[in-house]
Amino acid sequence: MNGPLRRVALVGGGITPFGVRAATFPELIQEAGARGFGSLPNLAPEDVDSLFVGAAQPERLAFQSHVAPLAAELLGLTPTRVIQRTELACASGQSALRSAYAAIASGLSDLAVVLGVEKMNLPDMAEANTSMADVLDRPWDGVHGATAPPFFAMVAQRHMHEYGTTEEQLALVSEKNHRFANRNPTAQFQGKVFTREKLRGLPVVAPPLRLGDCSSMTDGAALAVLVEGSRAREFTDTPAWLVGSAQCSTFHNLAHAGSLSSWEGLRKAGQELYRSSGLGPKDVQVAELHDCFTISEIVEYEELGFCPKGEGGRFVEEGQSDLGGRVTVNPRGGLLGCGHPLGATGVAQAVEILGQLQGTAPSGRQVPGAAVALQHNLSGSANVHSLLLWRREN
Amino acid sequence: MNGPLRRVALVGGGITPFGVRAATFPELIQEAGARGFGSLPNLAPEDVDSLFVGAAQPERLAFQSHVAPLAAELLGLTPTRVIQRTELACASGQSALRSAYAAIASGLSDLAVVLGVEKMNLPDMAEANTSMADVLDRPWDGVHGATAPPFFAMVAQRHMHEYGTTEEQLALVSEKNHRFANRNPTAQFQGKVFTREKLRGLPVVAPPLRLGDCSSMTDGAALAVLVEGSRAREFTDTPAWLVGSAQCSTFHNLAHAGSLSSWEGLRKAGQELYRSSGLGPKDVQVAELHDCFTISEIVEYEELGFCPKGEGGRFVEEGQSDLGGRVTVNPRGGLLGCGHPLGATGVAQAVEILGQLQGTAPSGRQVPGAAVALQHNLSGSANVHSLLLWRREN
Repeated sequence: MNGPLRRVALVGGGITPFGVRAATFPELIQEAGARGFGSLPNLAPEDVDSLFVGAAQPERLAFQSHVAPLAAELLGLTPTRVIQRTELACASGQSALRSAYAAIASGLSDLAVVLGVEKMNLPDMAEANTSMADVLDRPWDGVHGATAPPFFAMVAQRHMHEYGTTEEQLALVSEKNHRFANRNPTAQFQGKVFTREKLRGLPVVAPPLRLGDCSSMTDGAALAVLVEGSRAREFTDTPAWLVGSAQCSTFHNLAHAGSLSSWEGLRKAGQELYRSSGLGPKDVQVAELHDCFTISEIVEYEELGFCPKGEGGRFVEEGQSDLGGRVTVNPRGGLLGCGHPLGATGVAQAVEILGQLQGTAPSGRQVPGAAVALQHNLSGSANVHSLLLWRREN
Repeated sequence: MNGPLRRVALVGGGITPFGVRAATFPELIQEAGARGFGSLPNLAPEDVDSLFVGAAQPERLAFQSHVAPLAAELLGLTPTRVIQRTELACASGQSALRSAYAAIASGLSDLAVVLGVEKMNLPDMAEANTSMADVLDRPWDGVHGATAPPFFAMVAQRHMHEYGTTEEQLALVSEKNHRFANRNPTAQFQGKVFTREKLRGLPVVAPPLRLGDCSSMTDGAALAVLVEGSRAREFTDTPAWLVGSAQCSTFHNLAHAGSLSSWEGLRKAGQELYRSSGLGPKDVQVAELHDCFTISEIVEYEELGFCPKGEGGRFVEEGQSDLGGRVTVNPRGGLLGCGHPLGATGVAQAVEILGQLQGTAPSGRQVPGAAVALQHNLSGSANVHSLLLWRREN
């Protein structure tokens, strides 16, 4: 592979408050526009030639399809190069970022808006839950009741069996991410302290996972602006450069998952990311990892090479994923603390990374001297892994 | 804009039979794989680094989300660079092609599979029809009964009022495309002759549009393989080069449509396509245009510069869009003759174009000496227009 031939920079963005929102799907889009464009006073709408929308399930959660032109109209944009929506379940937001990256790097676009949005809280949550279940293989796995919580519970059980990971260690992931979320005004969970003791007393969802081990059904949106490298300084002195991309899809039907505690797809994607960027896990100071469940973050430490296989539980216990540790993971608050509006999550992670690399994240969340940041999203039953690598200077 | 920095070629593909199929959504994917990969004996699955799936509404028509990894598994692929699904309603297939184009041109991918698929015929067609209605702006336009047929009927009425276009001219579009479809074994409508007289006797759907003026709800899939230019000759001596791309989105809410008979978005997209490729309408010998309704094809002749504004009706009447005319439009049979499985249509158009540029289309459909081909898809209420330009040599 040749590397991308034009450089791509993230220059600004914004995130709506995440939570159980009264706002409708269109209103969330408008809020993200106000916050994102508000960060870029030098950006004129006519400068935007392309729009990429990441949304997982608007057809069933907002009863609206063809959402890319809807978003263009609500954001005051009339794209003339590329307009599309991308869907990759829980990784839909990152998928939109990658599409913008490819379009700009290839020359199809010079300046693109990436919007991530999801409205998940419906009057009838049974519909929302059914819709989520269809992320897995419906005829094979859906009929057996396989949805995200029982699947990731099996992952946790197997990881505990093989490596001695403990429920206490799972709780430590949640404690850390909720602590960060308490310093993030856009996070769903604020003003509540989740200690490990409190977390271990919450109701069990699917053993060993308790309520605090699971991310939630959340409404929210985020917007990011990417530009061709030579134009980056028009908008900011400190852009975040997109310097690596990888994805891997290894199965869909759960019968083909192989080991539950080793995520081969993530390991392969990580290898591709590091190979294509020339950077390695030791170069990364901050990571936005897809902590849809506490066990996910632990497996991700391992497969991304932040610690040896099987030592993810000890990694969080030793504070290696906290501020001051080996790599700070999820200083935004993660999916556990911020909530997980599917399409919005990946875009919000990128906006957080921009702040981290610019050194403007709030006290208690800023990683000192952060120069290289890794972004990870998984989708479905961890069968697809998506990675981006960002750096302050290139 | 700089042009794409790596060349991209279409080297093979296949199309399933379109129609009201007993095959399920997964079975359609497998059929497309067998036909597409069957055309490429030199292609090994492990050579495929990326997968792009175009599907508009699997969530509501196949009750399956996260369809990209499902398709990867069914096709025997394990992508390690890019995997995603793109949605742009009726233009979802072309959107997947464009994503693959950007990925390869940028260096993110070297060899990508593009799959378009849609299963639209359900036991309960009311669900399918409701789902289709959500392509338009639900809270503003859906509540007033705006769906595709009444919208395009208004376009036809206005075009007839302004330019004197006749119902006979509408029927001529359908007659031509059904004639081509009768020579295409993958078309939905075969073995039935649709003369202009017969077409004008069919029931009215929304005046002046009759049954034969409307494309249908269809099941089908298509698969195409795109590669970085230097590898094209590994697979074929006559690749189709992707040499131009443009899209334009001008509105979503119908109140903002402006003129119904002039499609500003298509005009702008066409200008961008011609500007970026250095080619013009006179260079095009064959065009796959989005004839979701007969009036669409007539407006498209005009906005793409094949004839002056308002003369689209006369253009078809004079045979200028038929074999031997100024530009042969829809030799595959179009959406009118082939049916319109949303995500599959754009990919099937590209496969047809490959055959046309290779000179291997069946007698009665082959455009002699075709060297440059234009592909158009519209989506929604013609509020988004998507264009690709292909040529035999570059």
